[in-house]
Amino acid sequence: MGTSNGFMLHPIPGGLRALIIWSILLCFGRLSFGAKSRHFKWEVEYLFWSPDCIENVVMGINGQFPGPTIRAKAGDTIVVELTNKLSTEGVVIHWHGIRQFGTPWADGTASISQCAINPGDTFHYRFKVDRAGTYFYHGHLGMQRSAGLYGSLIVDVAEGEKEPFHYDGEFNLLLSDWWHNSVHEQEVGLSSNPFRWIGEPQSLLMNGRGQYNCSLAAQFSNSSATQCKLRGNEQCAPKILHVLPNQTYRLRVASTTALASLNLAIGNHKMVVVEADGNYLQPFAVDDLDIYSGESYSVLLTTDQDPSKNYWLSVGVRGRLPATPPGLTLLNYRPTSASKLPTSPPPVTPRWNDYAHSKSFSNKILALMGSPRPPTKYDRRIYLLNTQNKMNGYTKWAINNVSLALPSTPYLGSMKYGLKNAFDQKNPPENFADNYDVMSPPINPNTTSGSGAYMIALNTTVDVILQNANALSDNVSEIHPWHLHGHDFWVLGYGEGKFSDKDEKKLNLKNPPLRNTAVIFPYGWTALRFVADNPGAWAFHCHIEPHLHMGMGVVFAEGVHRVNKIPREALACGLTGKMFLNNNDNNHN
Amino acid sequence: MGTSNGFMLHPIPGGLRALIIWSILLCFGRLSFGAKSRHFKWEVEYLFWSPDCIENVVMGINGQFPGPTIRAKAGDTIVVELTNKLSTEGVVIHWHGIRQFGTPWADGTASISQCAINPGDTFHYRFKVDRAGTYFYHGHLGMQRSAGLYGSLIVDVAEGEKEPFHYDGEFNLLLSDWWHNSVHEQEVGLSSNPFRWIGEPQSLLMNGRGQYNCSLAAQFSNSSATQCKLRGNEQCAPKILHVLPNQTYRLRVASTTALASLNLAIGNHKMVVVEADGNYLQPFAVDDLDIYSGESYSVLLTTDQDPSKNYWLSVGVRGRLPATPPGLTLLNYRPTSASKLPTSPPPVTPRWNDYAHSKSFSNKILALMGSPRPPTKYDRRIYLLNTQNKMNGYTKWAINNVSLALPSTPYLGSMKYGLKNAFDQKNPPENFADNYDVMSPPINPNTTSGSGAYMIALNTTVDVILQNANALSDNVSEIHPWHLHGHDFWVLGYGEGKFSDKDEKKLNLKNPPLRNTAVIFPYGWTALRFVADNPGAWAFHCHIEPHLHMGMGVVFAEGVHRVNKIPREALACGLTGKMFLNNNDNNHN
Repeated sequence: MGTSNGFMLHPIPGGLRALIIWSILLCFGRLSFGAKSRHFKWEVEYLFWSPDCIENVVMGINGQFPGPTIRAKAGDTIVVELTNKLSTEGVVIHWHGIRQFGTPWADGTASISQCAINPGDTFHYRFKVDRAGTYFYHGHLGMQRSAGLYGSLIVDVAEGEKEPFHYDGEFNLLLSDWWHNSVHEQEVGLSSNPFRWIGEPQSLLMNGRGQYNCSLAAQFSNSSATQCKLRGNEQCAPKILHVLPNQTYRLRVASTTALASLNLAIGNHKMVVVEADGNYLQPFAVDDLDIYSGESYSVLLTTDQDPSKNYWLSVGVRGRLPATPPGLTLLNYRPTSASKLPTSPPPVTPRWNDYAHSKSFSNKILALMGSPRPPTKYDRRIYLLNTQNKMNGYTKWAINNVSLALPSTPYLGSMKYGLKNAFDQKNPPENFADNYDVMSPPINPNTTSGSGAYMIALNTTVDVILQNANALSDNVSEIHPWHLHGHDFWVLGYGEGKFSDKDEKKLNLKNPPLRNTAVIFPYGWTALRFVADNPGAWAFHCHIEPHLHMGMGVVFAEGVHRVNKIPREALACGLTGKMFLNNNDNNHN
Repeated sequence: MGTSNGFMLHPIPGGLRALIIWSILLCFGRLSFGAKSRHFKWEVEYLFWSPDCIENVVMGINGQFPGPTIRAKAGDTIVVELTNKLSTEGVVIHWHGIRQFGTPWADGTASISQCAINPGDTFHYRFKVDRAGTYFYHGHLGMQRSAGLYGSLIVDVAEGEKEPFHYDGEFNLLLSDWWHNSVHEQEVGLSSNPFRWIGEPQSLLMNGRGQYNCSLAAQFSNSSATQCKLRGNEQCAPKILHVLPNQTYRLRVASTTALASLNLAIGNHKMVVVEADGNYLQPFAVDDLDIYSGESYSVLLTTDQDPSKNYWLSVGVRGRLPATPPGLTLLNYRPTSASKLPTSPPPVTPRWNDYAHSKSFSNKILALMGSPRPPTKYDRRIYLLNTQNKMNGYTKWAINNVSLALPSTPYLGSMKYGLKNAFDQKNPPENFADNYDVMSPPINPNTTSGSGAYMIALNTTVDVILQNANALSDNVSEIHPWHLHGHDFWVLGYGEGKFSDKDEKKLNLKNPPLRNTAVIFPYGWTALRFVADNPGAWAFHCHIEPHLHMGMGVVFAEGVHRVNKIPREALACGLTGKMFLNNNDNNHN
């Protein structure tokens, strides 16, 4: 690694930050005091890019990969005028973690909240960011997130408000994984018989940057990797974290991986976890941070180590036998030169299958005192069994033996207008067979596909028990991070084996954390509770991109009749599109 | 090459053919006497396939590559119920050579005749095949034709009618070229600055079959290619033409190449050319056949050679310095074993830049006596200068200095409904500067992009003088095969240099051939005449896929106000889509 001139990540002191925000406002926003409307004009297109020093085609925005970072204040309205500059593909963007109260059509989920935006067309996303936190955005059509369509969305506290912790500067770390095979080819493989798995990622990326054919820490490595020779201005050069001694920094960490569960550690430094998915936590210190796809955290880092040295920041794979080298960058204590490598090797990721470690971490995550507490009772409880299955020879994932097949008409539209042919009208199963053995491969692995949705009474409290099971092969049960759109849920607890009555009293109703993403561990269950207070149709799915592609998701819907002002453009496809056309048959021919 | 069991191409004797057609009717069509409606249910999807023995992703139909062959009789109505099973991409299919009288919305040209069909949606193409001939179909959105979305469409004479020549059996040869780079990557390269050319094809395919890593004729080759060891049932095994001695066979040859101009020859055999683009020709004999992308021919082959031998059928590249080995298959005289290789090498393609040879061939193509003759006078003459240009650093092709930028609203809809914001309202230029030097690179290479259309008075006679010129580099002028949708044109003549008054009297008004595709030779001109008798909006463009992608086309439109019964589904995008939605604003919210 060369010196750190150019394109490096500097902490932004308060004064400068204010100036930058001021400039952004002048450029993009209408200037007014208090809440603001922030306008962005984006074009989605493919770019040649070298995320891991190997050139590839990525899906970028305005010529950048990852896409531009949106920075706003709580209460602001974001307007993104998104033009699809792709040649043949549709596109949508999901604003991950933003609840979209009153704007369910802006959730950016193809087949659920809107039609894909056609090539050449422009769609206006308009939504409020009502709460400070660390968020991100990403494509939600096919596997376009895997193609690189993602970026950060950071919401600061409203003018005059304060975060419940202090920091002197901050860094943004958007984590992802990267394949050299095109996403189109990955999709075809997943949809083929015989099935072709995408395999492990070639590289891990931090802020879209990784190194495939060299290592920043080759001298410490057992592999044959050679030392990277980067000047710092390459697309794959790491963004170095330049810090001053004895300061506190906020690291905003988010994972938009297609597959990998990650663990992040910084040599010699502890981290204090203070935020998850836009919700404040009871602060707790860790040596390393587990982060699953779809999650975000803020951690505080105090630069209290020997300032004449630099330190590794390392990201490694958890939960699957890793075949991907760690993602690396440096914590550089100024004025020490960033070209001075640490004297010890990068922190080693916990053993991939040390689930005790993972569970211990997850169980430490509790809401900050004073956070909203869950209702003490639920109105409805839905058990969702996660299984890997076969369907006519194809490999699928299914929930209560239904593999989600997304319809061509968005649920939001077909529900609003009562188009009963648009999707399966039967409520999908709320439970699974009592005698299902979650510890063994399915006796009958055959599944069915379906497009039914769980219709939920508005403002009721729903419990979801996510139940993991054995996959198709013996002794395999995978991690699945489940992400809910339009809501946060309380994570009431994790447990082993099949959820049973005796687990009931172990649920944490006192200080469970609010999240939008929660993991189920192998052979385990996770209990969630949420209030269905947001009229709309919402995806709830495994955030592993190929798993969702293989059917691992469900749809929740509540109070859709109450949703108004859906832009017609959001529904100009499938049966809603046909309805708009046909209602008008007498005016034109 | 092994023995020829399985998946080989047999001539179909009359009786068997009748039986097969009968079966097709039973399966797909409504059975009635005289003209029939033939129904097809197609699903477009990506497949893993090995067109040239190297596995790749191809765009196929109903699990096949190339797509299924449509076989019909003149006067029949074809109904194709096309479902888009792609994950993120739209799709359309153009029925190349079918004039679509009264059904311009079924021409299958994205941005011109219809909106792309969205993923999951189904569109019904319904059109009449009014004339016997050799046609094909292919994708017409982005570069999906290059991705493998094509197949044959063969129209026999109507019941009781006869072709003006005799044959005992027939073979179908759909020619194409193939790249190992994905079409998505090709498109990004063409649209990038710096520009990246797609390069020469890796393989030439006959009926979707070629051999990249081996040669059927290795023993005769100077290259290091090894002899193919194929059993005959591989996806890349050649379809062998099994013939009996002393018979006459009709070879239906069509080229849907993305780039390559081709030349076809059969060892020791002459061919008699009898049909071009669905029009009968004054028969003429040749040793080899030039065929440009977008063209089709029928040739008669008489099996009058030594029946104890087999013979090569060879296809090679013309007009560009070839970097692609010839496409090969065998003419197998039954009962000689198909595993017996010819004793002499495959016929050698004429030198790539032997344009005298090409022009001599083109000039032999004349209409069969009794064919319709062109009007003796034209009402309007449009000169179209073909130039390679730069635009803001991007490389483009332009016509009269306008590079076609397709709008997101199909012309057919925006013209029908008078939506003036959908495309440039000014008629594009009808001519170019008198002093433009076609023999040198452009002095000012900068071009503009535009979406204007040539508005043509219905039933008038239009002359088009296609004028070639020097490309951006010195001493380079390329071949461009121009294809007209919705009409045939008479090819009045070819000439050298800039078209001038003295060329006027050289035009052939006596027996020019009717075609839908005609080539311009390097530094030359080609004169066409057509009657604008088909209400609709029609593409006229270079059939080289990357050239069209770079803007090498124009749009002709005539009598669009007369077009009725356009299915709404064809126009449910862009501004027509918006119009349909907004006209209906009071009914829903």
